[in-house]
Amino acid sequence: MLTDSRIQEHNEKLADDHAFRWGYMQEWLHRKGIDAEHILQQLQAYQVAIPSWALGTGGTRFGRYPGGGEPRSLEEKIEDVGLLHALNRASGSISLHIPWDIPQDVQAIQNLLDEHHLTIDSVNSNTFQDQKDANHSYKFGSLCHTQSEVRQQAIDHNMEVVEYGKQLGCHTLTVWLADGSNFPGQHHFRRAYQRTADSLKAIYNAMPEDWTMLVEYKPYEPHFYSMIIPDWGTSLRLAEYCGPNAQVLVDLGHHLPNTNIEQIVARLLHFGRLGGFHFNGSMYGDDDLTTGSIKPFQLFLIFCELVQAAQDSAVQNPAVAYMIDASHNTKDPLEDLLQSVQTIMTAYAKALLVNTKGLFAAQEANDVVRAEEMLKDPFLADVRPLVAEAIRRNGGALNPLGLYRQLDIRRQLIDKRGKLAVATGL
Amino acid sequence: MLTDSRIQEHNEKLADDHAFRWGYMQEWLHRKGIDAEHILQQLQAYQVAIPSWALGTGGTRFGRYPGGGEPRSLEEKIEDVGLLHALNRASGSISLHIPWDIPQDVQAIQNLLDEHHLTIDSVNSNTFQDQKDANHSYKFGSLCHTQSEVRQQAIDHNMEVVEYGKQLGCHTLTVWLADGSNFPGQHHFRRAYQRTADSLKAIYNAMPEDWTMLVEYKPYEPHFYSMIIPDWGTSLRLAEYCGPNAQVLVDLGHHLPNTNIEQIVARLLHFGRLGGFHFNGSMYGDDDLTTGSIKPFQLFLIFCELVQAAQDSAVQNPAVAYMIDASHNTKDPLEDLLQSVQTIMTAYAKALLVNTKGLFAAQEANDVVRAEEMLKDPFLADVRPLVAEAIRRNGGALNPLGLYRQLDIRRQLIDKRGKLAVATGL
Amino acid sequence: MLTDSRIQEHNEKLADDHAFRWGYMQEWLHRKGIDAEHILQQLQAYQVAIPSWALGTGGTRFGRYPGGGEPRSLEEKIEDVGLLHALNRASGSISLHIPWDIPQDVQAIQNLLDEHHLTIDSVNSNTFQDQKDANHSYKFGSLCHTQSEVRQQAIDHNMEVVEYGKQLGCHTLTVWLADGSNFPGQHHFRRAYQRTADSLKAIYNAMPEDWTMLVEYKPYEPHFYSMIIPDWGTSLRLAEYCGPNAQVLVDLGHHLPNTNIEQIVARLLHFGRLGGFHFNGSMYGDDDLTTGSIKPFQLFLIFCELVQAAQDSAVQNPAVAYMIDASHNTKDPLEDLLQSVQTIMTAYAKALLVNTKGLFAAQEANDVVRAEEMLKDPFLADVRPLVAEAIRRNGGALNPLGLYRQLDIRRQLIDKRGKLAVATGL
Amino acid sequence: MLTDSRIQEHNEKLADDHAFRWGYMQEWLHRKGIDAEHILQQLQAYQVAIPSWALGTGGTRFGRYPGGGEPRSLEEKIEDVGLLHALNRASGSISLHIPWDIPQDVQAIQNLLDEHHLTIDSVNSNTFQDQKDANHSYKFGSLCHTQSEVRQQAIDHNMEVVEYGKQLGCHTLTVWLADGSNFPGQHHFRRAYQRTADSLKAIYNAMPEDWTMLVEYKPYEPHFYSMIIPDWGTSLRLAEYCGPNAQVLVDLGHHLPNTNIEQIVARLLHFGRLGGFHFNGSMYGDDDLTTGSIKPFQLFLIFCELVQAAQDSAVQNPAVAYMIDASHNTKDPLEDLLQSVQTIMTAYAKALLVNTKGLFAAQEANDVVRAEEMLKDPFLADVRPLVAEAIRRNGGALNPLGLYRQLDIRRQLIDKRGKLAVATGL
Repeated sequence: MLTDSRIQEHNEKLADDHAFRWGYMQEWLHRKGIDAEHILQQLQAYQVAIPSWALGTGGTRFGRYPGGGEPRSLEEKIEDVGLLHALNRASGSISLHIPWDIPQDVQAIQNLLDEHHLTIDSVNSNTFQDQKDANHSYKFGSLCHTQSEVRQQAIDHNMEVVEYGKQLGCHTLTVWLADGSNFPGQHHFRRAYQRTADSLKAIYNAMPEDWTMLVEYKPYEPHFYSMIIPDWGTSLRLAEYCGPNAQVLVDLGHHLPNTNIEQIVARLLHFGRLGGFHFNGSMYGDDDLTTGSIKPFQLFLIFCELVQAAQDSAVQNPAVAYMIDASHNTKDPLEDLLQSVQTIMTAYAKALLVNTKGLFAAQEANDVVRAEEMLKDPFLADVRPLVAEAIRRNGGALNPLGLYRQLDIRRQLIDKRGKLAVATGL
Repeated sequence: MLTDSRIQEHNEKLADDHAFRWGYMQEWLHRKGIDAEHILQQLQAYQVAIPSWALGTGGTRFGRYPGGGEPRSLEEKIEDVGLLHALNRASGSISLHIPWDIPQDVQAIQNLLDEHHLTIDSVNSNTFQDQKDANHSYKFGSLCHTQSEVRQQAIDHNMEVVEYGKQLGCHTLTVWLADGSNFPGQHHFRRAYQRTADSLKAIYNAMPEDWTMLVEYKPYEPHFYSMIIPDWGTSLRLAEYCGPNAQVLVDLGHHLPNTNIEQIVARLLHFGRLGGFHFNGSMYGDDDLTTGSIKPFQLFLIFCELVQAAQDSAVQNPAVAYMIDASHNTKDPLEDLLQSVQTIMTAYAKALLVNTKGLFAAQEANDVVRAEEMLKDPFLADVRPLVAEAIRRNGGALNPLGLYRQLDIRRQLIDKRGKLAVATGL
Repeated sequence: MLTDSRIQEHNEKLADDHAFRWGYMQEWLHRKGIDAEHILQQLQAYQVAIPSWALGTGGTRFGRYPGGGEPRSLEEKIEDVGLLHALNRASGSISLHIPWDIPQDVQAIQNLLDEHHLTIDSVNSNTFQDQKDANHSYKFGSLCHTQSEVRQQAIDHNMEVVEYGKQLGCHTLTVWLADGSNFPGQHHFRRAYQRTADSLKAIYNAMPEDWTMLVEYKPYEPHFYSMIIPDWGTSLRLAEYCGPNAQVLVDLGHHLPNTNIEQIVARLLHFGRLGGFHFNGSMYGDDDLTTGSIKPFQLFLIFCELVQAAQDSAVQNPAVAYMIDASHNTKDPLEDLLQSVQTIMTAYAKALLVNTKGLFAAQEANDVVRAEEMLKDPFLADVRPLVAEAIRRNGGALNPLGLYRQLDIRRQLIDKRGKLAVATGL
Repeated sequence: MLTDSRIQEHNEKLADDHAFRWGYMQEWLHRKGIDAEHILQQLQAYQVAIPSWALGTGGTRFGRYPGGGEPRSLEEKIEDVGLLHALNRASGSISLHIPWDIPQDVQAIQNLLDEHHLTIDSVNSNTFQDQKDANHSYKFGSLCHTQSEVRQQAIDHNMEVVEYGKQLGCHTLTVWLADGSNFPGQHHFRRAYQRTADSLKAIYNAMPEDWTMLVEYKPYEPHFYSMIIPDWGTSLRLAEYCGPNAQVLVDLGHHLPNTNIEQIVARLLHFGRLGGFHFNGSMYGDDDLTTGSIKPFQLFLIFCELVQAAQDSAVQNPAVAYMIDASHNTKDPLEDLLQSVQTIMTAYAKALLVNTKGLFAAQEANDVVRAEEMLKDPFLADVRPLVAEAIRRNGGALNPLGLYRQLDIRRQLIDKRGKLAVATGL
């Protein structure tokens, strides 16, 4: 289906228009005194991980409307991500979910990954569902459970997840804990917290030294009165309780209404504990929409914090893991992911154009209007040619989504995998 | 399992304590100049409908933890509601959901209902899921769909639901429309609205004259950018577009954060368009928790509006349908429903104790503190003996939940129906 | 201070850069098949009103930090707006607030307005504060008050406001009602509503036939339990109760968290009852920040609805009044307003570039991704050259804010009016 | 006006009714196996501080409607609190606000406090307003300001506040920091945070060793894009940065929509960093309504955490400071405060009745329904006789609000202080 020559062909057709737009952008940057090549290098180096669980059609508790051609195995998931990466050269890694993605033949999987130039960036444990053969139920919690056997089962599962990750060269364990309560009185808040902290520490202590544990937070869902880890403050506290290799993971949809997320990002960077992101779009809660589809300005402001921190020697924060975590209920999952990556790169490109020195000077002078305009200027610029050029230089398509549609890849996948294929875990 | 003599026995055991508490309450009411018998009559007459879909363990998109013994058929659902009603004598009707509850043998179902002293208060259509044999998918909407065939299928389904309702003596159609969009641009807001309005009107026009259509609203979920009917303003508009027998249904969990729901209730009563309630508890959104479990004061204030309107000849509003709509994810569904009914009756009892005349006088005089205290006084009172006495006089148990547990009914249901029974529709 | 020749001079300095950017934009539009001149005409015709109360430094209940040089009279307010309009040629009207802006010499005021090419677009009543000589207090409400004398005083005040408006050629009365309650029980919801409806109707009936009444809504503040007009549904109902010349006014900051405002705009257009806007920026509530400073994408989506409706003969909506309503607490008010107008024009320009036909086709086909991309394409474009060219052709400055700063106008105003000048009403 | 014999007289009139209700309550407690005397002792020992700034009529940025008779000096404020304390014997301390409450004659003030059996529980600094004689403005922040002179002025002010507190035997400094930003770009998040942390530490280090610093958080207002201390996570971090005597202060109205505040309370207790409360009622944000007027169940749940922690030797938390912080815009401030104290004691009394042992057992067993019912049982009880008896035994009035009204105290205050008296700071 997708080959390098197809990409070449596609790019040639768009070459004239791209040259027109990119030429202008180069001159525009030049007039601003910005080194286009320097920006391009950073864009070309940028990668965001694709979650294996987002390759099939998602749904809500009310139902699911599958679109067909979903990957039926880990191998097919890798193929799908490989396809995305071939198109945009910016999605060269996968987040795996255990038990949905247990590799049967590790070497074969590794070969397939290599073939598609992919790595495993993170493995994710699942203690929010009961597996068929499980001895204990997570109905009333996992790492926070009142019974030590249940906690131990959840700890063991996490260790097993790390084991699978090690086999595939991964160094990051992401823990999203669904534990919580639905009613006042259900949880002994203090004891449930401490049990969780100790369970997490047990996992942390058993991890290899060169691994990182990412602790995600979420204010509600699947529980609706309290969540064990509802906010960044709790995640940070737990990370510190575990040790230096535990970090906070920020999922954009996991915040109460009106939260200033970019400030949280800045704080975590300042504390040296920002471990990674789950990118998605959100209007109400954990909507899991396409990244940047609702609040593109917020996404840009988050990247501004990241870029500024990267340029600031005062910041002692480890490398940040960039991951998408979305649910594609009404869109073709692959199209959604192509849009997401493009939007993320666009936000990053704009943030790279910020005149940091000028911004800091305006901040020091309390010149509110000038400081704001320093951010609005790159936000209002059209940086799409910059993103397209970065992808092009990496060997990708000038218009990844356009080419995907033009090649009718979804139809090909349906032909191959069937209309009723269901991705593992859905 | 549950028999009248069991209830008798249970009540006798609690008779002394009840006499103590009820005796005090009588004297307390007497000192306030309140006619206890008059209050009791209203409480005894109160009924709230049980939704057929809430008799099994609910879940979220992340999973479900069934508890066992769930009703496997419409017949078993009726038996479960019959059990609840036998315990509290206040849940004598059922809301049916089509296609989950299609009666195969109407006469047999009617007999079973009669046996348990139950009626069908409302039939609910389902255009938020694709049925196996459906010609058209609701992935992109039902009554709002761009294609007339899809709209017609949804209209026909609603008419079929009415047909089933007619067979069982029901006179109310509840329409909850999941239609909406997930992304900017997806919907042509104005056209999608008008298509919905016309579809609803087609259903309305085809309903029997003595039927009522209830139009529910919800701000988000299962769609996360826009819902066709997001708020009471839209529901009201659509109801008026349809005709005098269309009314607004208020689901307590279907509001944006911080909404003053009791004011909406008052407004709809004022406009003569309050059709009914879906009671449940909510902290974040459509949490579907036990009614009153999070904001019991709000529930009380809602009942205050209902009681005041019932006493006010200026209000021209049809009879209001009281229905529970909840999802029992971590509790035994029957226990949850017993709690809900008890809490609803408690709120109603407190509202009945409000000194309406004194309240209105304080309001006229702008005596804010006195008006507030007029509401706080009954809210702070312990009206449980009043509720217990009303149930007792109706033949129910002084402590419905206690008796349910004492008789170990869940275990009996599991023995009979199995650990893995799954309620239809879940 | 500001003269046409200064503007000329400024534009000449920027001419080369503008030519570079505008030249590219023209070619870019040409390649898209968009008629640049047609877009320009619409942009050139666009005007947004400046509120007289936003020309001084605003504040919160915690304090105010005035910046100096504030207008001390209606005359100086007109001069300030005249200055803004001279710079951007897009803010050629003023919203007056009575009693803060009562004209003493109508003819002189009219001459001053003419001199600055300004009109009065709306007069605003104030029944949320007690005036020194008032007979009755609005502590417990105005149009909703339990006492008829207080309601009559508020009605009379509105009529007086209309009278002042008539003298200055205005045809719009804006009613923002602060009436509400702080505690449960304080208001008899139904009666308070009906009193309000009847008071509004009395004002409406006394207005000249060619006047429009705009009914604003707000969910909370200055009252924190209930507001008489909390949402669009109530505003719409009241407008309909009054008559065809009553319309709903949408203030962007007056919504509960996560409200989809663009959908409300579409609905009101569909019902023919969208009367106007109060533009501002908001993150939490009625923050009164610079328009578009927090959610620029939302502002764009609102303009998309307006542009689409303007092109759609099915829409029967009167002309919409565009007004800013903000509070400038930390910025120079004039700079804030210059930013706001620029941002509004930018959003409008992007909305004008939407391929409406293509969008509608994608919507009809339920092609969610294509429909979304149809909106993202113009949103991601850099339309600033288009806005600059429109202003330039109208005789304004290519960079209004830049010229304002360059001329050091604030310092001139401080020199003239003093450091401690306080705008009327603050 | 108010004398002990008046209270005596009042109590005698209500003696019969109180005996009736209290008699029942005693028997009710006895049947539950609860030691009434033990509960009473705890209730009698409970004290909540009254804020000096809440004794006058509050307002919003839109205006203020003073009610008359407001205290014009620190002396009159003490008299007002003395009055409240005489009525309910539960409000025996005052929170002072500097510079509004600077004592001129320390010994005289101390004598007056003694006379009324009052203490100073906390002194509050003010860096959110510019004082007339200030060298530097806080327009762009105080402890976070970019200029060291401004930070130093704010630090010095806090030290001055401590000095005043020392003179009056106070040991607690409450820091509410209004510092924040209104627009993206305005603040360098990381640097502004670090400057704040270092300023706070400077204050902390200069405090006497037996003093406590309370660090308050608030998500928005008076700034609307970011606040330096928006959430408990930031407060906790700053407290830890300062040292062991720095604690977090929880103001009930300072949370984003839907926040689970009782969980935050439990967490802070677990971390040993819960310093105190600002009690008030809230529906939307920092509404500053009467405590418990909107969410009485939430207030009860918060007290449940406090009571459970007090009984749990695992909790190492210093004594918690209980303070009211409200704004009385439409009520008589003294009536509002009497209501607040009564409601707080009611919540505390209910929490004291929780069967902690039974609750913990249900929690351990994951019996969600039983655990919930363990909380609902005392919440639904009418504990007003218990509260009344505690106040009576302390020498206060059975019905403090009733006696206040009966004695027409507000009219007396107006006669004495005048209709237009304005409390310092308003």
